[in-house]
Amino acid sequence: MDPDLSALDSFLADAGDDGYLIDADSSDSDQRYLSGFDAHDPFFTLFTGETHLLVSGLEYGRAKKESRADSVSRYADYDYQYGSPEERDRMLADFLVDHGVSSLSVPARFPLASADGLRERDIGVEAETDGVLTGIRATKTDAEIESIRDAQRANERAMERAETLLREASVEDGLLIHDGRELTSERVRREIEIALLERDHALDETIVACGIDAADPHDGGSGPLRSNETIVIDVFPKNKATNYHADMTRTFSVGEPSARAREWYDLTAEAKEAALAAVEPGVTGEEVHDAVCDVYEDAGLPTLRENPATETGFIHSTGHGIGLDVHELPRLAPGGAELKPGHVITVEPGLYDPEVGGVRIEDLVAVTEDGCENLTDYPEELVL
Amino acid sequence: MDPDLSALDSFLADAGDDGYLIDADSSDSDQRYLSGFDAHDPFFTLFTGETHLLVSGLEYGRAKKESRADSVSRYADYDYQYGSPEERDRMLADFLVDHGVSSLSVPARFPLASADGLRERDIGVEAETDGVLTGIRATKTDAEIESIRDAQRANERAMERAETLLREASVEDGLLIHDGRELTSERVRREIEIALLERDHALDETIVACGIDAADPHDGGSGPLRSNETIVIDVFPKNKATNYHADMTRTFSVGEPSARAREWYDLTAEAKEAALAAVEPGVTGEEVHDAVCDVYEDAGLPTLRENPATETGFIHSTGHGIGLDVHELPRLAPGGAELKPGHVITVEPGLYDPEVGGVRIEDLVAVTEDGCENLTDYPEELVL
Repeated sequence: MDPDLSALDSFLADAGDDGYLIDADSSDSDQRYLSGFDAHDPFFTLFTGETHLLVSGLEYGRAKKESRADSVSRYADYDYQYGSPEERDRMLADFLVDHGVSSLSVPARFPLASADGLRERDIGVEAETDGVLTGIRATKTDAEIESIRDAQRANERAMERAETLLREASVEDGLLIHDGRELTSERVRREIEIALLERDHALDETIVACGIDAADPHDGGSGPLRSNETIVIDVFPKNKATNYHADMTRTFSVGEPSARAREWYDLTAEAKEAALAAVEPGVTGEEVHDAVCDVYEDAGLPTLRENPATETGFIHSTGHGIGLDVHELPRLAPGGAELKPGHVITVEPGLYDPEVGGVRIEDLVAVTEDGCENLTDYPEELVL
Repeated sequence: MDPDLSALDSFLADAGDDGYLIDADSSDSDQRYLSGFDAHDPFFTLFTGETHLLVSGLEYGRAKKESRADSVSRYADYDYQYGSPEERDRMLADFLVDHGVSSLSVPARFPLASADGLRERDIGVEAETDGVLTGIRATKTDAEIESIRDAQRANERAMERAETLLREASVEDGLLIHDGRELTSERVRREIEIALLERDHALDETIVACGIDAADPHDGGSGPLRSNETIVIDVFPKNKATNYHADMTRTFSVGEPSARAREWYDLTAEAKEAALAAVEPGVTGEEVHDAVCDVYEDAGLPTLRENPATETGFIHSTGHGIGLDVHELPRLAPGGAELKPGHVITVEPGLYDPEVGGVRIEDLVAVTEDGCENLTDYPEELVL
C-alpha cells in the first residue's frame, strides 16, 4: 500500500525546500512509512517528489528488493565505508547535491549532528514541528485499518486468555491462586504474550496491574494479584508482518471491589460512552477529551484540565491515534486537532488514586465519514 | 547497578559545558542508562554531576520511584502541559537555567528542533560525536556481564529448540517436513520466540534464512526450508527484566550442502578462531577484523577491506559490542578502537553469495584482563 504523499509535496512547496530527509532506523515510524523499508541501523530517506534511499552496503540488496524507494544508493557509491563523522556528513551532502537538494525540511527529532554537518556544508536544514509525515500517517487507508483490525482480533484472544486465568483462579487469604500457585502479574502477562505470539503478534510491554500498581497508569504491575481489588489489563500488540498496532484495556476484579472502585468503574464506562458519542469528523480531539473531563468533573473528581498538578483522578489524556506507533496523531487531549475519516484512535478514560486503585476502559475506534466505528469486540464486565 | 559516570564528568570539564542533556524515550539506551528509567514517550535527562529528570505528570510518580535520578521535575512545575513546541522549548530552557546550565553537550542524535529551540534562547548546544555515554556503556560491570550471560543461556535453549526441529525433520522433494507439514522459516522462528518468552526474554527479530535468503546477511528468511542448503539462524534476545542482550549465530544444513558451502563453513570457523585468538585488551577492533579478513583473503575470497563495492564474500564487519543495544561499541571493524576489559563483543565472520548461500558463525565474548572469555556454550555442527 503506497502512501499518499501529496501533503508532503505541498509542504515542501510551501516551505520552499528541495527535499525532506529522514536519518533514522525503522523503529522511527516516519522512516518506515516513507521508505517502506525495515532496518535496524539508521539509514537515509530523501523525498523530493520521488523517494531515494542511502544505505550501507549491508542493506543494499535488501533495500533494492524490499523498499518502496524509486532509487537506492549505497555508502560505497560515495566512497564511504565506516569513517569519521565528518566523512559521513560529506557523503550525505554529496548524495543531496546529486539529487539537486540545497535546502531541506527534516523532522523535529532529526539528529543534530547530521543537521549541523550539513549546515556547515551550506545545505539549509530546518526542523519542522508540524509533524508533516506523522500527520499524513494519521489518516489510514482501508488496508491499514484492516491491519489494525487484525491486530485487534489477536488482542481480543489474548485478553480472553488473561480473563480466563482470572476466572479460573481461587482465592486464599485474599490472593489469587491458579494451578496451585499464586497468580502474578508476570504469569498473566506471559500468557498474554504467548497467545499473541501464536498469532504472529508481538508487544514490548503489557500492563497487568493490581491495586496500588494500577493507581499509576504506566506501572506495568508486578507480584501476586489480589481479590476484591481492580486489575487493569492494557494490551497493545503489534502485527509482526505489517507493524500495525491495536490497543485495548479492560479492568477486572475477582470478587466485588470497594464501593468507590465500583463507582469509578461505572463513571469511566459513562465517560467512554460520552467520548464515543462525541467522535465524528470535524470534532476536535480536545472536544472529545472535554466530554470525558465533563463526566468526571460533574461527579466531583479531579482532572488535569481542572488542576494541572493533580496526582489523582483523571491524570492522562483521553486517547491517541494508533498505527505504526502505539501513540501517534491525532491526540484526544488539550490542543488535539480535528478528527478526520480514516483516523484510528483509542478512547481510554480512567481514574487513579493509591487509596482506591486504578480503573481504565479502552476501546479502539476508526473515524468514519459520519461518526465512528468501534473496532473493539470485547465485553465490559468488572466483577469476575 | 549505578553507572560509573566519571568519564562524563571529565568530558564536560574538557568541553567547558555545564551539562549533558538527553531528550529521548527509553528505547534510546543512553537515555535508559543515564536515567535508569523506562518510559515509552520522550523525556529529558540532564547530567551536571548529578542527574535530573524532567518528565510529564503521567510519568512523575513512577520516575520518582524507579529512576536513578537525584531529582525529578514534572512539566507542570514549569507551567507546561500539552502546549506548542515553543512552550516546550521555553519549559526546557527554564529547567536548564534552574540547574545553572547555559551550555550543553548533547548526543549526536539529539533532536534538532530541541537544539534549535534552546539556541534561540541563548543556551549553547553542541552535538558530541564521540558517543561519550555509548563509550561508557561499552565497559560492563560484573552485574551487567551476568545479565548478558543469563540472556545467552536463554539464547542457547532457544537455539537448541530450533536445531531439534531441523534434526527431527524428514525430507521430501528437497523440502523439510515436520509434523506432516513443510517446515518454514516462520515456524522455526516462532518456536525460538516462544522458547525465549518462556524464559522471560524477547526479541524484535530472528533470522532463520535458508539458501538464497541466507546470502543476504540481514534477510530474516521466509518460506519453506530446504535440505542440502545452509540455514543461518541468528538469535539476539533481550532479557525483559534487565534489557541486556545476547547474540549467537549457527549455520546448519540438513544433509550435506555443496562442497563450496562446506569449504566456506570450515573457513568461517577458522576465521572465528583467528579473531578469538586476537581478542585481548589493547588490541583494536580493527586488528581483530583484520585477522578475519586475512583468513578470507588468503583463501582468495572477496572482502569489503579489499573491495568496498563487493556484494559477495565477507560483506560486513567482524562484530560489535552488545549490552542494552544489540549493536553498540566497540566495533570490530575498520577504525574500531582498542578493546578493554569489560567489553562484551560478538565475533561473527561470514560469507555470502547468492550462488552458494550464506554461512555465519557467531560467538559472544567478554574481554578480560588478559584475553577473553567465550560466553557461548553451544556446539558448531554444520550437517544435521
